[in-house]
Amino acid sequence: MQGLMMDYPLTLTHFLERAQRLYAQKEIVSKTPVGIHRYTYGDLYARVCRLANVLHKLGIRKGDRVATFAWNSYRHLELYLAIPCVGAVLHTINIRLFPQQIAYIFNHAEDKACFVDESLLPLLEPIKGQLKSVKNFVVMSDKPAFHTGLSPASDYEMLLQQAPAHYDFPQLDEQQAAGICYTSGTTGEPKGVLYSHRALVLHTLVQCLADSFGICERDVVLPAVPMFHANAWGLTLSCTMLGAKQVFTGPFLQPRDIAQLIQDERVTLAAGVPTIWIGLYQLLKKEKFDISSLRTMPVGGSAMPQSLIEAYQKDFNIPIAHSWGMTELSPVGTVSKPKSYLENIPEAEYFKLRAKQGIPVPFVEIRGMDEGGNEIPWDGVTIGELQVRGPWVVSGYYNDPRSPDSFQDGWFRTGDVVVIDKEGYIQIVDRTKDVVKSGGEWISSVDLENAIMAHPKVLEAAVIGVAHPKWSERPLACVVPTEDAKGSITRDEIIEFLSDKVAKWWLPDDIVILEAIPRTSVGKFDKKTLRHQFRDHQWPE
Amino acid sequence: MQGLMMDYPLTLTHFLERAQRLYAQKEIVSKTPVGIHRYTYGDLYARVCRLANVLHKLGIRKGDRVATFAWNSYRHLELYLAIPCVGAVLHTINIRLFPQQIAYIFNHAEDKACFVDESLLPLLEPIKGQLKSVKNFVVMSDKPAFHTGLSPASDYEMLLQQAPAHYDFPQLDEQQAAGICYTSGTTGEPKGVLYSHRALVLHTLVQCLADSFGICERDVVLPAVPMFHANAWGLTLSCTMLGAKQVFTGPFLQPRDIAQLIQDERVTLAAGVPTIWIGLYQLLKKEKFDISSLRTMPVGGSAMPQSLIEAYQKDFNIPIAHSWGMTELSPVGTVSKPKSYLENIPEAEYFKLRAKQGIPVPFVEIRGMDEGGNEIPWDGVTIGELQVRGPWVVSGYYNDPRSPDSFQDGWFRTGDVVVIDKEGYIQIVDRTKDVVKSGGEWISSVDLENAIMAHPKVLEAAVIGVAHPKWSERPLACVVPTEDAKGSITRDEIIEFLSDKVAKWWLPDDIVILEAIPRTSVGKFDKKTLRHQFRDHQWPE
Repeated sequence: MQGLMMDYPLTLTHFLERAQRLYAQKEIVSKTPVGIHRYTYGDLYARVCRLANVLHKLGIRKGDRVATFAWNSYRHLELYLAIPCVGAVLHTINIRLFPQQIAYIFNHAEDKACFVDESLLPLLEPIKGQLKSVKNFVVMSDKPAFHTGLSPASDYEMLLQQAPAHYDFPQLDEQQAAGICYTSGTTGEPKGVLYSHRALVLHTLVQCLADSFGICERDVVLPAVPMFHANAWGLTLSCTMLGAKQVFTGPFLQPRDIAQLIQDERVTLAAGVPTIWIGLYQLLKKEKFDISSLRTMPVGGSAMPQSLIEAYQKDFNIPIAHSWGMTELSPVGTVSKPKSYLENIPEAEYFKLRAKQGIPVPFVEIRGMDEGGNEIPWDGVTIGELQVRGPWVVSGYYNDPRSPDSFQDGWFRTGDVVVIDKEGYIQIVDRTKDVVKSGGEWISSVDLENAIMAHPKVLEAAVIGVAHPKWSERPLACVVPTEDAKGSITRDEIIEFLSDKVAKWWLPDDIVILEAIPRTSVGKFDKKTLRHQFRDHQWPE
Repeated sequence: MQGLMMDYPLTLTHFLERAQRLYAQKEIVSKTPVGIHRYTYGDLYARVCRLANVLHKLGIRKGDRVATFAWNSYRHLELYLAIPCVGAVLHTINIRLFPQQIAYIFNHAEDKACFVDESLLPLLEPIKGQLKSVKNFVVMSDKPAFHTGLSPASDYEMLLQQAPAHYDFPQLDEQQAAGICYTSGTTGEPKGVLYSHRALVLHTLVQCLADSFGICERDVVLPAVPMFHANAWGLTLSCTMLGAKQVFTGPFLQPRDIAQLIQDERVTLAAGVPTIWIGLYQLLKKEKFDISSLRTMPVGGSAMPQSLIEAYQKDFNIPIAHSWGMTELSPVGTVSKPKSYLENIPEAEYFKLRAKQGIPVPFVEIRGMDEGGNEIPWDGVTIGELQVRGPWVVSGYYNDPRSPDSFQDGWFRTGDVVVIDKEGYIQIVDRTKDVVKSGGEWISSVDLENAIMAHPKVLEAAVIGVAHPKWSERPLACVVPTEDAKGSITRDEIIEFLSDKVAKWWLPDDIVILEAIPRTSVGKFDKKTLRHQFRDHQWPE
């Protein structure tokens, strides 16, 4: 027996129409190369209608992929809404990928058109010959004229101006693809995640729950996460649904830019990766900015050091909301917020809890699986791979034969290695490919790195597993000393330092001192390169 | 092109499993005839598993309707979860309906079993011969033994005790019916609204948004709205999803009971109809209770007087969240919360805004339609029928030939008459059947009643439209004087009092003084009876 409820699809079109109907006068603010740009949701709606007509004129039809290559801005938001709402697929391209990866995903997605920020033309022009499917480039410029080697190229503002002002958005199926985003792919080519309208709508609703990010109309949201990656964590859709003021940074992501925007626009929620907040913290300790408007700062992408969570709380009274997600999860999976009965635990435990990645949000299910394929207990100690399922979790990569490797009995294998405590809080301790497999047991490279980085002479540390005749793999620590400690730091003092902090069998068998740790295109430690570099490392006797 | 996201159904089973996994130690508190009962979500889950086995043993299969006839309690919550999660349909029966209506809906729904509170047996026993489909009665008693004329009857606690402790909940389709609830039906027989799992899940997500009720894990929720009507406004499902503590009143709904529970359990959110809050306010003004834990009080069902919203805010610092809903909307449709830029408007305007029923929540669309079938402007003045659509709005009544009358071009006709202001806030001004149609224009009976009730000598007033030779209908005011004013109140002083408060053509053509206004089974003014009584009223010259 079926319910007798309206067959009303969950599509992004509802958010667009709702913002126009209820929040037409709320503001959207963008920092651009020519200054601060301000307009309203009413203006946004009018331009999205024009843009929808432009897309039609460019030959974009239902299901066609349309690329964006752009910073966070009101124009990118227009594309975020117009492309899915006409029934096409928004393909946000990560500008930080290597050129050959960018060309690969353009061609793999078969993008029919590409909208590109003028400032990013230098990244696309060198590979233009490789972009086989793109029929039109549209350049988004803040100046009256621009030059580009891309062709055929037109001017975004000109096209909008010439387009009809009215557009009737079609009724869409909620299963219809709304967007595609490729993983940054540290191993192999990037893989495409194809989001449905339904997935993005449900993700938005859950993100706005009071126990998740609790976004509401009165919020002023600054996504210091790029719109070209993982849907800017879903924040722009959440804001649009609720009419929250949005603040876009454009290409200006330095701590000073962000502090100034928080102060000037009275930002209440700013979200970003730890690197951004580390930089901001250092600035705030040196210079005075009024950031009292902030009520929360969601952080994700990689683990935020506990010390920084503590420092933000104590120095600025800002609760960091630690979160975990992935491109494959639209992206939010867990949010860390102490349950009410955990709020008064001793301070040390409290911040340890806050430093965990949190409990699954509604409709995300989690489990940890060990190498033998058994579910790990929720004991806060046993290590396993995090697996998830839910309505906004990928069911397979777009047109990719590697897909089956990422699933086990209908669960998505995240590749993240976790412990789960008895309250359901997960803590990421490593990536499956980075964990050191020593004599059948797993050693968390991340935990070791954190322990090493606590040493005052250490600036950065990366731990990798290197082949070992007896133990299969043993940990090798690659250490970058601080400026002052260059030349003076020794292997033995680090081992000594660690000896009362980690289990004896976790102690690195060797330590190498480096000038710098190699990085991937998105700024993470490139352990693949390190493993290659040290594949024949000779262990000390 | 379809998205590549997991096909993960939106079912209530997720809430049940989630509460057990993440919030097993959170509390559920019930006031019962034998004292306060306390247990946890962990206990709840264990008993829901047993109950699922009981349902199977009673022959309940997928799609079967199972009736509950019960007050708010942990047992009712167990039924709320077990019945839908085994794939059956929870039929909450409104105990306040007339006996013949109760018999009608039992038979119309073809309930196979009925779970009844011992204290409510006297309401069912007299009609037992009319309940044709019920094969089993299960009595929920707090005592070791009970007597009933219902047959065959078994003991809830005994059945649970004997049932296996383990149950594997089936994977359900989200379109599957989860519940059915009949409207109270002031005209004609009650009509059945059949909820799907999907509708209830989406309703829950939206209810918990920060801009709706903002329910979160730390909340302590007291639904002073019955679980036998309109899903207790969805509150029990919202709490279950987030592990919020629930407080059930049982049959104890007097102001003192509620005040005591709020104080003892540190309730943060209490929801109810205006009558409940009027009573509570009067008590709180006389006696001291500590209700400082309350952060919000959602109110709906009928309009909350602006004076009381103001009084609660000023005297107790409690924001009343005015809301509008219907059984046909699962039930929440709109919530009133001033938008951020309306928070500092002058106080008089501010409370006027707060007294409106609010803006539609995400995924509810609204429009107002005039008699000619045209959409009314959002000008705060023009009167029209409120029509809605959305994923938790009824698409047709269960097995009911009257259904088509309630829809227009795919929109549900609420029967409520509204004005909508330019910000999208609706204000209910009447019911379509109660509005006075005078010379082609509509007069709001509710607005007139409010104006009359402001007179110090008036206790209650009901306005009805009565046939008029020239104007088709004209307003007749039925007035109940206060105790002190009995015998002294006059028609002319009321008309005089109204003259500077409503338009001249709105002034009632006559006023009759009554001892009491007749009420429906659920306590609303019974205007149908009044219209019948005064159908031949002679207008004064």
